[in-house]
Amino acid sequence: MADLRFTEDAELQKLNSLVKQDPEKFENWEQLVRAAEQQEGGLGRNSSPQAIAATRQVYDKFLARYPLFFGYWKKYADLEFAIAGTEAAEMVYERGVASIGTSVDLWANYCAFKTETSHEPEIILELFERGAESVGLDFLSHPFWDKYIEYAERIEKPEYIFPILSRIIHIPLHQYARYFERYRNMAANIPIADLASESVISVLRRSLSEEMGVNEASVPDQQLRAKLDAYHMEVFTKTQAETTKRWKYESEVKRPYYHVTELDEAQLENWRQYLDFEEAQGDYKRVKFLYERCLVTAANYEEFWLRYARWMIAEGWHLEVSNIYERASCLYVPISQPEVRLRWAIFEESIGRAQIAVEIYEAILTKLPHHTQTIIAMANLYARQNGVNDAITLLQGFVEDTSIPLDVRGEIISEWASKVWKQQGDAVGARAIYEKHYGAFVACEPFWHNWFSFELQLPSFGKMAPGNHNHIKKIFDLVRTYAKLPQPAIREIASNYLKYLEERGGSSAMEEALLIDTQMNGPISVQNHSGPWMIEDSMCRNRERDAEAQKLIGHPWSKFFPVDMASDD
Amino acid sequence: MADLRFTEDAELQKLNSLVKQDPEKFENWEQLVRAAEQQEGGLGRNSSPQAIAATRQVYDKFLARYPLFFGYWKKYADLEFAIAGTEAAEMVYERGVASIGTSVDLWANYCAFKTETSHEPEIILELFERGAESVGLDFLSHPFWDKYIEYAERIEKPEYIFPILSRIIHIPLHQYARYFERYRNMAANIPIADLASESVISVLRRSLSEEMGVNEASVPDQQLRAKLDAYHMEVFTKTQAETTKRWKYESEVKRPYYHVTELDEAQLENWRQYLDFEEAQGDYKRVKFLYERCLVTAANYEEFWLRYARWMIAEGWHLEVSNIYERASCLYVPISQPEVRLRWAIFEESIGRAQIAVEIYEAILTKLPHHTQTIIAMANLYARQNGVNDAITLLQGFVEDTSIPLDVRGEIISEWASKVWKQQGDAVGARAIYEKHYGAFVACEPFWHNWFSFELQLPSFGKMAPGNHNHIKKIFDLVRTYAKLPQPAIREIASNYLKYLEERGGSSAMEEALLIDTQMNGPISVQNHSGPWMIEDSMCRNRERDAEAQKLIGHPWSKFFPVDMASDD
Repeated sequence: MADLRFTEDAELQKLNSLVKQDPEKFENWEQLVRAAEQQEGGLGRNSSPQAIAATRQVYDKFLARYPLFFGYWKKYADLEFAIAGTEAAEMVYERGVASIGTSVDLWANYCAFKTETSHEPEIILELFERGAESVGLDFLSHPFWDKYIEYAERIEKPEYIFPILSRIIHIPLHQYARYFERYRNMAANIPIADLASESVISVLRRSLSEEMGVNEASVPDQQLRAKLDAYHMEVFTKTQAETTKRWKYESEVKRPYYHVTELDEAQLENWRQYLDFEEAQGDYKRVKFLYERCLVTAANYEEFWLRYARWMIAEGWHLEVSNIYERASCLYVPISQPEVRLRWAIFEESIGRAQIAVEIYEAILTKLPHHTQTIIAMANLYARQNGVNDAITLLQGFVEDTSIPLDVRGEIISEWASKVWKQQGDAVGARAIYEKHYGAFVACEPFWHNWFSFELQLPSFGKMAPGNHNHIKKIFDLVRTYAKLPQPAIREIASNYLKYLEERGGSSAMEEALLIDTQMNGPISVQNHSGPWMIEDSMCRNRERDAEAQKLIGHPWSKFFPVDMASDD
Repeated sequence: MADLRFTEDAELQKLNSLVKQDPEKFENWEQLVRAAEQQEGGLGRNSSPQAIAATRQVYDKFLARYPLFFGYWKKYADLEFAIAGTEAAEMVYERGVASIGTSVDLWANYCAFKTETSHEPEIILELFERGAESVGLDFLSHPFWDKYIEYAERIEKPEYIFPILSRIIHIPLHQYARYFERYRNMAANIPIADLASESVISVLRRSLSEEMGVNEASVPDQQLRAKLDAYHMEVFTKTQAETTKRWKYESEVKRPYYHVTELDEAQLENWRQYLDFEEAQGDYKRVKFLYERCLVTAANYEEFWLRYARWMIAEGWHLEVSNIYERASCLYVPISQPEVRLRWAIFEESIGRAQIAVEIYEAILTKLPHHTQTIIAMANLYARQNGVNDAITLLQGFVEDTSIPLDVRGEIISEWASKVWKQQGDAVGARAIYEKHYGAFVACEPFWHNWFSFELQLPSFGKMAPGNHNHIKKIFDLVRTYAKLPQPAIREIASNYLKYLEERGGSSAMEEALLIDTQMNGPISVQNHSGPWMIEDSMCRNRERDAEAQKLIGHPWSKFFPVDMASDD
């Protein structure tokens, strides 16, 4: 982070530079924030402008890095209230709920703050409604709902309370029973017309009129209330059942809030299962809310962001998908795990926004300039959108950039050659690319592996075939005499060459195959025998030996002269 | 094994049928042999012809199956001696040393038997020499050498003894010191001319004459003897050193003889290291003998047969190589491990005996008629030797043979198609083969995997390209809607299809890729969502949803009417 501009406070500067040295170390941040608050014996209305400015800076930077710490948003808001008053505090709350909209505590605090600082019920109720939309479905949202009802009582508008309760009783909540009890008691003293929607009431009235054989108008209120009560009991039973289903998952959520520390596998597994369950229920709103809750505590886990995006893609809310990928990429998942970003680019291209995809790739490459997968992904996008020539130009640029490590360039060359062969149908051209570059890539495994596989993919007969065998043999010879590859890589190419000889070799191919096999798989003494892979001369030796062998059959038994049977003289 | 023809002995017949039921169970064989010997209260010259015939049959069958049990060869020989006399016994010994020529005990017994039963020293000494050639290098060959020397004494030919000793003293032996001592004592009383080869003596004489400044003729015998003694001490020191080098390996050989039970890893590792050591010394004769010893105790271990063959190939003794493979294949390594046989065929072809290779393949196929690797190896040989058309005809034959399991035929079809494409350059013809057969191979993984890889290998541009994409897409659609493959196989093909879309797809390819990825890698609810792989309809849904989404942005906040936030009504 940049320097603190408005303070000379030595302690603050020191802690700030610690944070700069190691921004990933949360302890440094904590200390910095604490130190900022404690300036001049505790920050307040009378603190110096410098101290106030520095503190705001610290909070802004801290919360930009860790937007999910609802507790700090609250502290920041309190601070602003003390320093600069209502509007400033409200701004902070707004930023807070924008950053972590699923926090019951933050919403409860915000609404409480509003009830203390505003005198316009319309506005306050509107805020409560926004809160209800944001956290009303939380299994532990009762602190918020209680504040809502409590406010309705305070402004002496009991007629607001019943509608609120009539919403709550449908939601699976830890305290669902309490709310239903209150709802039922209220229902007793409320005009029938307000007890349920008109449609519900008229249905009940009709059925009663039929039961009693009277016309609808003369159905007595008492019977109607009884029917309505029964209907509400059904709702209760249903909500109770829904609550029970979720209890086992909710009771396993050991850390509902965000922290920099990791979650243990049991926690992750509980979230996976809870999400599976809620998705099976099929209520879009509930599933989305559960993902948002999950991604507060598991914000650093790529897995859940990818899952959330894929689920949302299937749901078809493409604007939401972009938003999910963007939050994951820009705020939570470290660049060292680029998959989210790569998936994001694919998604943008898939909905016709290829330019955004390109920008995403470029953004990755500014942070990881040698990320092969991204380079190739970008080239593939060029090929799809602008044609293969553009892709090739791009790849060539990377190949010629000598600041890029050889291994990366080696892979990019293969990508280039593969485009020339697979998309331009030009095998000779592809071969030429390898021919031109192998001198610079003697120790680059993928380069040799891909060159060899390329030649193996070509048929031995037909347009690009002439000399096909010579090319394959040439690569194999280069690999064992010229290239600088580790043994396992050489062995792999050698055994592919053996396979090739068996499948496509000529009438004397097995002679060559035999000797390669012997030197590759024979005992050490044979492998080292006159240098590795030096086949030809050992072949000559074999022929002589064989002739000898013919002669030696049934050699005469030597008489009693000292026949030395030992090796050594 | 066949019935025992010449006996009605119930016990024998019973044990024989046990052996027939389970020829791999060694205990059955043991009991059968014991029972045979114990017929009529112990077999002898006076036993009935039936009993004798049956016993011979049992021994012959047993030793054909287990030729490495030297103890049984000896028992069999004794038996023949008792029943039918010298020649019969000698025949058994000859068969014995032909089967296990490295057995010191068997050779010692055979020679001892010969000294008792023959009166022609020439013939007896010739046998001893054969023994010396066969087991003289064994670290524990002293029982044999002692018998040899003892016989020379018995026939009162001391002049034979010294030459024998002068050979032994060069061999690293457990008892090398004892032989050297005797050699040195004898040397004292032997004419100088017989103490070493003429060349050695004349060299010594010359150097002495120079030291003493006299002409060679007048160098005194005493000094010459002293020089010779010194020379022999050098030999001793050298042999002592060689013995010490081998001691650690020899002392680790816990089971020098053959048995049906397995060897523990420590034993196998000791043999590997011992062979490495002896090969490093580079004395062909000693290495070969060590392999032969190793392959008595480790006869059932493919590893050592393959190693022996590869070492021998490098040494260039091709007749020996064939012999090694033949023994391994016909006697010791079970058909269930066909590698030795396949390597053997390759070897025979490599030295220009393709016909023998074909016979080897056919032999494997009579035992394992569906062994894919062998079928393909044979086809490849046909291609190399007779041209690709012969290979294709052979493969077609197997494809049409409905007695062969589908999985095998599926792989053979791919082999066939690959020959048409890679060796005839006819991509369209190869494609036609897959097109024609896929209906019969709905559940055959390799078939679909290979078909798909085949299409991916073709370029999208050029002669065989037109419709290339349609073909790839078609296979993918068949895989997910028609073929009956396990999930992992479908997923693998699907991700290859995604890779293909990224590399070679058109401007809207990512739309398709996105949906495949979502259904393949999304949460379960999405995977099952409107049936797996049913992409198209979910695509439509997405588009509608997206339109909705556009409308819904900034939807008006609903006033205080019961807004049901719960899923369930």
